[in-house]
Amino acid sequence: MVLAGLLAVAIQDAGPMVPAVAGDDGRSILWIAMGVGVLALVAAGLLARAVIAMDTGTAEMRAISDAIREGAEAFLRRQYRTIGAIALVLAVVVFAGYHASPRTAPFALKTVVSFLVGAVCSGLAGFTGMYVSIRANIRTASAARTSLNKALQTALRGGAVTGLVVVALSLIGVGALFLFFGGLQDPTHVPYQLVGFGFGASLVALFAQLGGGIYTKAADVGADLVGKVEAGIPEDDPRNPAVIADLVGDNVGDCAGRGADIFESTAAENVGAMILGAALYPVFGVKGILFPLIVHAINLVASLIGVTVVSCKEDEDPMHALNRGFYLTSAVALAGFAVAVYTMLNGPGVGWTWLLGCGVIGLVTAFLFVWITEYYTESRFRPVQSIAEASTTGPATNIISGLAVGMETPALPVIVISAALLLSYYFGVRGLAGVVGISDYAKGIYGTAIATMGMLSCAVYILAMDTFGPITDNAGGIIEMSMHEGPIRERTDKLDSAGNTTKALTKGYAIGSASLAAFLLFSAYLEEIKAIVTDKVANAAGGGYMPVGWSFTNINLAQVPVFVGALLGAMLTYLFSSMAIKAVGRTAEMVVKDVREQFKNNPGIMAGTSKPDYARCVHIVTGAALKEMVLPGVLVVGMPVAVGLIFRHFSESYQAGAALYGSGTGIPLVPMIAGHAVNLAGAEAVAGLLMVGTISGVLLAMLMNNGGGAWDNAKKFIETGQYGGKRSEAHKAAVVGDTVGDPFKDTAGPSLHVLIKLLATITLVLAPLFV
Amino acid sequence: MVLAGLLAVAIQDAGPMVPAVAGDDGRSILWIAMGVGVLALVAAGLLARAVIAMDTGTAEMRAISDAIREGAEAFLRRQYRTIGAIALVLAVVVFAGYHASPRTAPFALKTVVSFLVGAVCSGLAGFTGMYVSIRANIRTASAARTSLNKALQTALRGGAVTGLVVVALSLIGVGALFLFFGGLQDPTHVPYQLVGFGFGASLVALFAQLGGGIYTKAADVGADLVGKVEAGIPEDDPRNPAVIADLVGDNVGDCAGRGADIFESTAAENVGAMILGAALYPVFGVKGILFPLIVHAINLVASLIGVTVVSCKEDEDPMHALNRGFYLTSAVALAGFAVAVYTMLNGPGVGWTWLLGCGVIGLVTAFLFVWITEYYTESRFRPVQSIAEASTTGPATNIISGLAVGMETPALPVIVISAALLLSYYFGVRGLAGVVGISDYAKGIYGTAIATMGMLSCAVYILAMDTFGPITDNAGGIIEMSMHEGPIRERTDKLDSAGNTTKALTKGYAIGSASLAAFLLFSAYLEEIKAIVTDKVANAAGGGYMPVGWSFTNINLAQVPVFVGALLGAMLTYLFSSMAIKAVGRTAEMVVKDVREQFKNNPGIMAGTSKPDYARCVHIVTGAALKEMVLPGVLVVGMPVAVGLIFRHFSESYQAGAALYGSGTGIPLVPMIAGHAVNLAGAEAVAGLLMVGTISGVLLAMLMNNGGGAWDNAKKFIETGQYGGKRSEAHKAAVVGDTVGDPFKDTAGPSLHVLIKLLATITLVLAPLFV
Repeated sequence: MVLAGLLAVAIQDAGPMVPAVAGDDGRSILWIAMGVGVLALVAAGLLARAVIAMDTGTAEMRAISDAIREGAEAFLRRQYRTIGAIALVLAVVVFAGYHASPRTAPFALKTVVSFLVGAVCSGLAGFTGMYVSIRANIRTASAARTSLNKALQTALRGGAVTGLVVVALSLIGVGALFLFFGGLQDPTHVPYQLVGFGFGASLVALFAQLGGGIYTKAADVGADLVGKVEAGIPEDDPRNPAVIADLVGDNVGDCAGRGADIFESTAAENVGAMILGAALYPVFGVKGILFPLIVHAINLVASLIGVTVVSCKEDEDPMHALNRGFYLTSAVALAGFAVAVYTMLNGPGVGWTWLLGCGVIGLVTAFLFVWITEYYTESRFRPVQSIAEASTTGPATNIISGLAVGMETPALPVIVISAALLLSYYFGVRGLAGVVGISDYAKGIYGTAIATMGMLSCAVYILAMDTFGPITDNAGGIIEMSMHEGPIRERTDKLDSAGNTTKALTKGYAIGSASLAAFLLFSAYLEEIKAIVTDKVANAAGGGYMPVGWSFTNINLAQVPVFVGALLGAMLTYLFSSMAIKAVGRTAEMVVKDVREQFKNNPGIMAGTSKPDYARCVHIVTGAALKEMVLPGVLVVGMPVAVGLIFRHFSESYQAGAALYGSGTGIPLVPMIAGHAVNLAGAEAVAGLLMVGTISGVLLAMLMNNGGGAWDNAKKFIETGQYGGKRSEAHKAAVVGDTVGDPFKDTAGPSLHVLIKLLATITLVLAPLFV
Repeated sequence: MVLAGLLAVAIQDAGPMVPAVAGDDGRSILWIAMGVGVLALVAAGLLARAVIAMDTGTAEMRAISDAIREGAEAFLRRQYRTIGAIALVLAVVVFAGYHASPRTAPFALKTVVSFLVGAVCSGLAGFTGMYVSIRANIRTASAARTSLNKALQTALRGGAVTGLVVVALSLIGVGALFLFFGGLQDPTHVPYQLVGFGFGASLVALFAQLGGGIYTKAADVGADLVGKVEAGIPEDDPRNPAVIADLVGDNVGDCAGRGADIFESTAAENVGAMILGAALYPVFGVKGILFPLIVHAINLVASLIGVTVVSCKEDEDPMHALNRGFYLTSAVALAGFAVAVYTMLNGPGVGWTWLLGCGVIGLVTAFLFVWITEYYTESRFRPVQSIAEASTTGPATNIISGLAVGMETPALPVIVISAALLLSYYFGVRGLAGVVGISDYAKGIYGTAIATMGMLSCAVYILAMDTFGPITDNAGGIIEMSMHEGPIRERTDKLDSAGNTTKALTKGYAIGSASLAAFLLFSAYLEEIKAIVTDKVANAAGGGYMPVGWSFTNINLAQVPVFVGALLGAMLTYLFSSMAIKAVGRTAEMVVKDVREQFKNNPGIMAGTSKPDYARCVHIVTGAALKEMVLPGVLVVGMPVAVGLIFRHFSESYQAGAALYGSGTGIPLVPMIAGHAVNLAGAEAVAGLLMVGTISGVLLAMLMNNGGGAWDNAKKFIETGQYGGKRSEAHKAAVVGDTVGDPFKDTAGPSLHVLIKLLATITLVLAPLFV
């Protein structure tokens, strides 16, 4: 509360006098946003019921689908148990950390509650989405027996359930905590108490994506190595004991994993933008703080419209139908965004069109990211074709050219992100030029925050397209395993191919939003440190003193601790990727061994006279993937904490030593603020780690996502008959590239997205320990 | 001269009043250092003469050696012509840039002269080293016919010529320019005028390493693909038309390329450390400025002793003998370093033992880097063995595990570098604790500079070991092509294997010194910007005013322009690597086509009845490699310049616009310094690019160097009979990894070392354009 009181003074001091209460405005906005969230949940329920009510095909298909469902549910149950245990330990750590200092103790309970609510919501979102997906797959397969359009709609609506639930839960969770913590009475300080929500979401997302990613690729690579390569049977052949594990993997990796990823994005972005909105309280009042919630309400409505209208002719490319829906969603979202900006971010001295411009920048950035990803991963364009061509001279040249393409991919996205940041910063300053008492820096940063919200304003539709991927993939597998041929196969193949494209595009979108959101989250971290220091100095001065004008906006790379933090942050992304990739390798090896054993002990499997033990394989992958996810996960959580504490301690004990020897402070970053020395070494080293870790993580993730996607499609391109087609030497070489790309694009790459945001949220939550 | 005058005032202002002239002290130190440099050149000449006087074997061997020599010399001639043209263009640009402003015009000529001297010295060093290497190879081969020791000594002494010439020329070049520019009269300002020397060296190094790296790997990969894979003939088989190009490549890539790389390191480090020494002028006088030159004089003497005493028993592992020499060199260098610190970096209030400690930290860092590189690239240890084991399941798992190892490799080196930076910073502050009037920051940074000098204090020996690699590689090739068998082959194989190890170790050393030196060069850049701004403000104030206490030590990552610069810097390292790797691919393809054509048009080649046209292949690779090196080279030079100018301009025109509309400045980084607005947006964005580009480049280079080395040795490990030995499936898979690793470890990785330093030197030279 001291913190709260101080901040109130700080804000009043910074701008015109405004009473720091939300009033009726805030209440109505909050109820509208949360009401839309609840309606979206109802809509998701209706969609789910409609999908589940559909026909489930033949008994054979049901048998396969049931096996997938059981495997996926068993994995998720065990995974959530592990994550739950880790989360509880962390909750205790956070509580103890906050409780240790009288300064933070009042917020200990609130932070832990937000943390747990965030974690539970994230788990719930992942579970619900997957619950529907593993039921939508067989319905899609069954619908494909009659019409492409029906199958497409089934898959997309199944996917939309994930999207709606994810964003609605994030909206309701943040809104409810805000209300519960008294945000309507004290709107400028409650956002700081919500940081735990983002951290809870990130933690679950990290382990969900990592565990799911290891699972899916270990099963895939293992099944391919022993099935296609050793036994010479085709993909998805029912004789392969690992085939069900492979299909389970699509759900737990792509579906539950990406659901948690986007949940985390919206949660972190909501909380971060609310903190920045609090800094602009004198301008927009509570409207500026609650603006992100309204944007997500618009997101829900627009995407629901988009999903409902998508339909597809029998001879059409399903991608065209999906794109039509995306364009419609974007148009509706943009219109809603304009209305929201006009009514909420307006007032004397505010140029709301500039702020709308920031939102447009965000939307355009989303489009550009999707297009760039298409360019690098579709076989129509040069990069994939160059990999296919290089395959003719063998696997080595295939790998070299794939890596070269992967390393080229960050160039354009980085230019786009740079332009988006600079332009939205500029627009923010211009839009708020008439407002006095707020620094240009705060105005510009708020512009970048609006751009991030613009980019995320069609997230639900994107997520629906993404989950469409594993559903159609599974549907194809079910059709193949139940030995259907002819037009049905053609339909599921078409959908499967569209699903592969949407999966690649959403990865591009996810990394784009992560990099844009990163700057927003940095700024929130700096605001948080500023609040903590302000509070600390005031306490040291006896509680009554209020330093004016100090703000923490300086992360100086030329200082050794910051530079070292930056080095360590970049290194973390490499080490983490290495661990994730190795985990896939080790787990895949266990799959290979089990399948070999099953083939050896039961020769009836290959003859087709007896069934393999699918469940044993599923069980083995489940256990191994969960074991393997712990170490890299702990590394990511532990490293920023260790850096923050070590630098803080190092700096303090050095100062004690220096005092003893009568020397200067030596380690800088201990400025005098209002007459008190404040040790910022820990906080700044962590900021360096966070920022440069983010930059390195974004580039590595792009390399891996796009490189992996390009390898995959180079193989598929050759399979269409280019360079000798299937069974040619070029195809063999391309299969090598595809296999290398698998852990890149489905394990390490997506896990890096989550890592970036986890770094941001963990530093936000643990910031009080670093000062 | 205005700049000079101001700086004199600034320094006097910062510390006790000391006359800023060097006096006799400076003269004697300079003469001693340059005298040692000249003696080292004489020693190099004697060594070269002794090597060249040796027996050149049979006529058959001479024919092969002559072909290599002609090819290498032809390449170097054409390469230097291209580099010369680029350098002249840049010289004009630099001159025009400096001349455009009255502020920098007085330094235009001096800067261009240093630039050209640096470029010429670098070229000379590369050429001389290679001149000896391509003659030492046949002598080594011939000596191997009688004794391992003789062959080892021939190769090492041949290599030592490169090392001695490189460091001696750097020493003499910097010393002569210092003298010539009046450094003895005005020692604190002349170092700033030497920045052109470092830039000239870097520019030549970049193109030498890039062109040589593309050449060597294109020839290697091309020869392997068409020889080993298609025609089924062994490596270095005389029937392969690309075999001579392959052997030429070892010289122009590893030998001339790495020579230029280390020349650049010592040049940049000399100049950077002299600038930092100037900041400590009140403490050490001219001794602190000339200290780096003395360290390199010690380096020359110590390494010459080390090289001379190395000898090897007939049945000994040559690596042991080389290591003995390295330990001896380090011990002598350390003793010399201690004496130099005691006599030069001493005085009232200085704890010289702390400063010696900094040097020890540098030496220990060098050892640790070498050991870590050994751990990751030698088959005795887990990483290489894990790749070999993964090869049993095919090329895909070989690649995956190699990449996983590569991504793991930065972890330990980053921790070592972090510890070295923090400790040497701390030691610097403690060692100078008793000195008043100098900031702790300047003291700490000088500590890191001493550590860098410590690390480079055995560079000559390391470089001798490095050039040992291509000499023994060539000797092995000559012996193989001239069909020798038995104990001679065994000897050259042993030496070749030791050469592979030394090449890997020196890469570890080079990247270690680059990352330690990076911080030194950042600091020099900041000092330079400070000097420019100080001068500019004083001019604006009418020339008489002197702002006190402002210093440019703040590169704030939380500012959008700095963050965008950082993003672009990291992206540059990826894009550059991609371009380098693709260049190898394209050039290798031309080799493959030519060899196929020769085989087709002249069937006598494979039958052994007629000779292939080696020269045609050499000619093709030469032309292609030189063409391919231009674009990535221009990218590296152009990007920091573009970022600096665009941000400067953007910021200025925005301010004009803002004034028009009556708003705030928006783009920050335009502080008021002594009442004058100074636009630092360009300078800070470039600093962000430089620092984060360096971090990203260091990590990527480690990934590529060590990953490539590990793949190479995993293949060799299997060839010793593990996992089925040669011709097994595991071996085939390992060959794929080795081929992928080639452009990694010999083209992109080493070129990144040079890129890092070029970024530092180009920003130093062009700093005046960014403010």
